[in-house]
Amino acid sequence: MPSASAREAALATTPAASLVFTTVLSHGPLTRAEIARRTRLSAAAVTKAVRPLMELGYVIEDPDQGTRSALGRPAIPVRVDGGKAFFVGVKVTGDEIIAVLADLCCRIRVVRHLALADRQPGAVLASIAELVLELLTEAEGFGAPVRGLGIAVSGDVDREDGVVRYSPFLQWRDVRLAEIIGAATGLPVTVDNDVRALTVAEQWFGAGVGLSSFALVTVGAGIGCGLVVHDRVVSGAHGVTGEIGHVSIDPLGPRCYCGNNGCVEAIAADPAILRGVREATGKPVATAAEALELARSGDRGAREVYARAGQAIGRAIGSVVNLFGPQRVIISGEGLAAYDLFAEGIRDAFAASAFGSAAQSDVMTRPLPFEEWARGAAATAIQSFIGSDTYEE
Amino acid sequence: MPSASAREAALATTPAASLVFTTVLSHGPLTRAEIARRTRLSAAAVTKAVRPLMELGYVIEDPDQGTRSALGRPAIPVRVDGGKAFFVGVKVTGDEIIAVLADLCCRIRVVRHLALADRQPGAVLASIAELVLELLTEAEGFGAPVRGLGIAVSGDVDREDGVVRYSPFLQWRDVRLAEIIGAATGLPVTVDNDVRALTVAEQWFGAGVGLSSFALVTVGAGIGCGLVVHDRVVSGAHGVTGEIGHVSIDPLGPRCYCGNNGCVEAIAADPAILRGVREATGKPVATAAEALELARSGDRGAREVYARAGQAIGRAIGSVVNLFGPQRVIISGEGLAAYDLFAEGIRDAFAASAFGSAAQSDVMTRPLPFEEWARGAAATAIQSFIGSDTYEE
Repeated sequence: MPSASAREAALATTPAASLVFTTVLSHGPLTRAEIARRTRLSAAAVTKAVRPLMELGYVIEDPDQGTRSALGRPAIPVRVDGGKAFFVGVKVTGDEIIAVLADLCCRIRVVRHLALADRQPGAVLASIAELVLELLTEAEGFGAPVRGLGIAVSGDVDREDGVVRYSPFLQWRDVRLAEIIGAATGLPVTVDNDVRALTVAEQWFGAGVGLSSFALVTVGAGIGCGLVVHDRVVSGAHGVTGEIGHVSIDPLGPRCYCGNNGCVEAIAADPAILRGVREATGKPVATAAEALELARSGDRGAREVYARAGQAIGRAIGSVVNLFGPQRVIISGEGLAAYDLFAEGIRDAFAASAFGSAAQSDVMTRPLPFEEWARGAAATAIQSFIGSDTYEE
Repeated sequence: MPSASAREAALATTPAASLVFTTVLSHGPLTRAEIARRTRLSAAAVTKAVRPLMELGYVIEDPDQGTRSALGRPAIPVRVDGGKAFFVGVKVTGDEIIAVLADLCCRIRVVRHLALADRQPGAVLASIAELVLELLTEAEGFGAPVRGLGIAVSGDVDREDGVVRYSPFLQWRDVRLAEIIGAATGLPVTVDNDVRALTVAEQWFGAGVGLSSFALVTVGAGIGCGLVVHDRVVSGAHGVTGEIGHVSIDPLGPRCYCGNNGCVEAIAADPAILRGVREATGKPVATAAEALELARSGDRGAREVYARAGQAIGRAIGSVVNLFGPQRVIISGEGLAAYDLFAEGIRDAFAASAFGSAAQSDVMTRPLPFEEWARGAAATAIQSFIGSDTYEE
């Protein structure tokens, strides 16, 4: 559920209307008959849901795409009018804030980056507000209102209350992000975990379109996982979900900051790789890029660290697949830059751990730069704008 | 989706009707207003769904439970008339077949056990048919028709085609169970994985009622897991799901029959424990009961084997919770007999591996004897009888 402030602006008043709108958003242009088939709603229910959306102008007929049925009755498809409303999406990383202005179809119209000198909530929140106000000015040129703001942060995020409960990466605890940024910008704010936000964008517009179940595994500074089951993003009863980084694959593995041993994140995330490469080579490598360069230059110790990381990721994906059998596993994140070094380990460990026909899950990689994560945040704002339970546990 | 033969007899013609019926089944008696609130359907949609169910007699008004609203308008609750239809549920274990005759409310009316001398498909199928025909005779005394048969088998089961693709435990491959038993008994047959079937019964009538997400972990001859996410049992895109037994928790752990190392099943299922106790004690223990007795008598080696098994189970539950964040984890299965020996290991390993607020998942134990598994099979038959997508991926 969206935060209190985001809840005001709901477009859809029933779950059926919400389902119809998101179906047209992902798959449009569609005729009403095609919508009925995809949503399993009756033709009458579709007509009833489409009418107010058309009256408000968010859905429009697209006669160019029309076909004439055998009986001569025209079937004019409908689509979402992207330019009718705008949304801002913000992704916060450790180094920078990325903000996008997106239209209702979640097409990116403007991108802004702002370097972060300080990870303290006060400084970061001021920077977010600054960027958002900048994009609001930009939006004036498009002639349609900005109807919501989505902010994506890593860690344990309470979307309903708009609070970042705990972000280990930013070292934030209980930051009331929606309330503060809502007051500063005047926008309805939706705050969500960054991987879940990216998963929404993949489900609606990316490699998850048309799939009722998939997993999005993100590799980089942390290791995360978004899950879609039964056509919806899993949010977890207690806020935690998709913590593939804290699936322990080895009781004798390295200690993780969470207190457990052998977590995937303690083996395969950037800091673990950096530490591993330093230990294996004795060289003072300072950044992920330097570690990568060393491994690519053929250093056996460094390569072995990446191979082990790949195996850890592959084993964890095997667990995900054995537990819920998704149609597809999408591997993404900035760690894809090292995919050539991970690939064999991931492939071998996945093959060894996937049980029976679970091995048939389609495992693919897909580069999604941080702009796409910010777009995911915009997608959560669109979700809140649509309203009526596109997102609830 | 049910097998072709089971599909004929669908009670509900729309997803809404199916949702209304299952809601009344799990939570009834309910007034129409309460149904609308629980299902999030409109009052009109509920009325429309209830009407044909009442005309057919499957749903009846229960004036005894009625209340009068402030305006004096009576709100008479409705409930399912359990005696209106009967179902047979069959669970196949390695040693016996358990069959129950259940009514439409999934109350067990008759139970039958039949020892299995032989696990060959031919012999088992003949025994299943024999038991079912016996129960059909019993059912005549109840004066309502038997409308379906559910059969629950461990392993990779294709419910849609009614085929047991691979049951490692029975050593079956590609057994066309629904077709053969359907021909022998004249009943629509639903075949499902046994843990998934038990999960359906728990969701409708057990410790999962009212929860939109939970995991049911079964411990015993194998280690299984049923998952409910977004109010529905997860079935897996490729048939495999809930294979918690094949989550590998230790790369140096014992070899599993699936080819991987350190699978939970290779550490914590009955055969692994038996082997472990033999190795640790040097004594020729032949059965799970003997191993249990030895551990209870205080044998340190035997106790250590159970403690390790408990830790493996606890770590695996930690992975499930970190990935899905279910509201509740229910531990069951015949292995609960040794729960006193597992408990500490499960508790400690779960606490160490659950990430952040995932530790808030409510972990409970619940004894479910094999009659309950057979009841789960009957629940899948009821599911097929209700029809219209109560079960689909």
